[in-house]
Amino acid sequence: MAKRLLRTLAGEAVWPPPIWLMRQAGRYLPEYRAVRAGVPDFVSLCTTPAQAAEVTLQPLRRFGMDAAILFSDILILPWALGQGLRFAEGEGPVLPPIRDAAGLAALDPGRLPQAIAAVLETIERVRAAVGEAALIGFAGAPFTVACYMVEGKGAKEFPAVRLLAWRDPALFARLMELLTETTIAYLSAQIAAGAEAVMLFDSWAGLLPPRQFRDFVIAPAARIVAALRTRHPQVPVIGFPRLAGLLLGEYAARTGVQGLGLDTAADPARARAMVPPAMALQGNLDPLALLAGNPAQAAETAAILAAMRGTPFVFNLGHGILPETPPDHVASLVRQVQGA
Amino acid sequence: MAKRLLRTLAGEAVWPPPIWLMRQAGRYLPEYRAVRAGVPDFVSLCTTPAQAAEVTLQPLRRFGMDAAILFSDILILPWALGQGLRFAEGEGPVLPPIRDAAGLAALDPGRLPQAIAAVLETIERVRAAVGEAALIGFAGAPFTVACYMVEGKGAKEFPAVRLLAWRDPALFARLMELLTETTIAYLSAQIAAGAEAVMLFDSWAGLLPPRQFRDFVIAPAARIVAALRTRHPQVPVIGFPRLAGLLLGEYAARTGVQGLGLDTAADPARARAMVPPAMALQGNLDPLALLAGNPAQAAETAAILAAMRGTPFVFNLGHGILPETPPDHVASLVRQVQGA
Repeated sequence: MAKRLLRTLAGEAVWPPPIWLMRQAGRYLPEYRAVRAGVPDFVSLCTTPAQAAEVTLQPLRRFGMDAAILFSDILILPWALGQGLRFAEGEGPVLPPIRDAAGLAALDPGRLPQAIAAVLETIERVRAAVGEAALIGFAGAPFTVACYMVEGKGAKEFPAVRLLAWRDPALFARLMELLTETTIAYLSAQIAAGAEAVMLFDSWAGLLPPRQFRDFVIAPAARIVAALRTRHPQVPVIGFPRLAGLLLGEYAARTGVQGLGLDTAADPARARAMVPPAMALQGNLDPLALLAGNPAQAAETAAILAAMRGTPFVFNLGHGILPETPPDHVASLVRQVQGA
Repeated sequence: MAKRLLRTLAGEAVWPPPIWLMRQAGRYLPEYRAVRAGVPDFVSLCTTPAQAAEVTLQPLRRFGMDAAILFSDILILPWALGQGLRFAEGEGPVLPPIRDAAGLAALDPGRLPQAIAAVLETIERVRAAVGEAALIGFAGAPFTVACYMVEGKGAKEFPAVRLLAWRDPALFARLMELLTETTIAYLSAQIAAGAEAVMLFDSWAGLLPPRQFRDFVIAPAARIVAALRTRHPQVPVIGFPRLAGLLLGEYAARTGVQGLGLDTAADPARARAMVPPAMALQGNLDPLALLAGNPAQAAETAAILAAMRGTPFVFNLGHGILPETPPDHVASLVRQVQGA
């Protein structure tokens, strides 16, 4: 009998729905902070299999989640291609920004197999230990990864990458091509190592005007999904085009994803009405409602469950869990969903 | 014969469409920077009628825009209610944050008539000088204004206000009530002083989960529109619920606005299909495409015009013009739209 998450992604209305949370392995857990304190920096944690596997498994042990998601970061891909990466305390990622052909030429896809070996070993370790939970691999989608590669850091609106796309479409297209191809290779290797589903995070998709959304969000996702399906036909892909807004249905119809992540702002019932009935939806409790706790958390959770009952659905947040979240709130959420 | 913008907002498919740009009076114009250099700070510029009227009119003189929008700021309302406000150079607005009942109680609606007198005088001066262009007044929508009042500054996701809404719904409801009522009074006074249309900016509407979007975005906008229609039935309201996404149609149907501003991410053709045929749409060129200039700017402009031809439409940006934008790009845009 297949795992609950995988049955859901195959189109079955499993109920109560499986649950896992974006960034469920992270700073809100004391056992995570203990492991983190023992490694020199965040990139080391992502690339040391014993520790990365340990933190991946922590939320399963504590809460009984239905899925583990590989502990890693979407910027491990550019790091593996040779772009420098560090995480400044309290500031997020810092990379030497790529703004021209020379910067792009310095990236080396040939480094990928060696550079991701530790990630693949993490996956092997976790897969051996997940039991009835499913193991999800992931990558950033090309546009979102490009946001950080070109900006060189997090930003409110990522003007540098969007300006590059307008000013030098040929260079930007080459960057997107490189990211699309290496993302296929990266996710394919994760699946070969043991990932049972993969998720494509396009956190900044909603910044784009509609024509660019089609070119830089939908088209690369469709290529990635098609390539993975050829190589690994049994492994579902969850797409997460955050803030896709009016184009959510178009993303669902044209990319071929089996699962669709809903961001905090998406109305679940409206989303349900615009995607094929067998498509699994995943989401979308406001992380701030979870931080606030009851009664807000319970009321919002009940509303989402009511809207999704009887359909293939994976309970999750609409964005990553916040570091300030009390673990007790998560335990209460899991109980509520499991009792649905 | 009514002004082109007002005919469009009344549901007529005026063509070529009227054009104006959000933040068209601003730092990208050297004549603006010259006026700004002569006043001590940004709030002074907003509250000194001669200078505020001058910068309001500058883009009309230079580009022949079809509308002037009052030069002011959405935070002039909390400032008028007694919340401190200053604009830190390069950092944006700074206010002493309101987080509890005492902070809310310190706001004084009784200050409003006196505090906004200068804004109303600016409107009178501009109205006397706009000629065939229409004068648009504006306010921030209650949720977006509350974002800044509670956070105390600009932020990426405005966690403080969203957490307050979950943790203390009664206090948050009182803040929203105060802002809704004072916004009605403020916009009504602007209309009485000469504004021919008003716009309600809800820049951060897209942060909210769907049930809060209905309570904190749609419901207050509906109340504001209804109250203004009773007092000033001839004056149209343009709503701008930025990043409303899947809920854009619901906002259009339930608020009663005559015009609907589209953000950069909204697909104009999809938006058109989900609103009443007589509703004017306004938008939505990417400000970064305008900064980049041709050929990106011309191609995007042509695509928007093609999607909107034959319908009531106001050409605008999808977000405010960026300070780095060359004025020549704006001149080129206006020529293209006027030649449509």
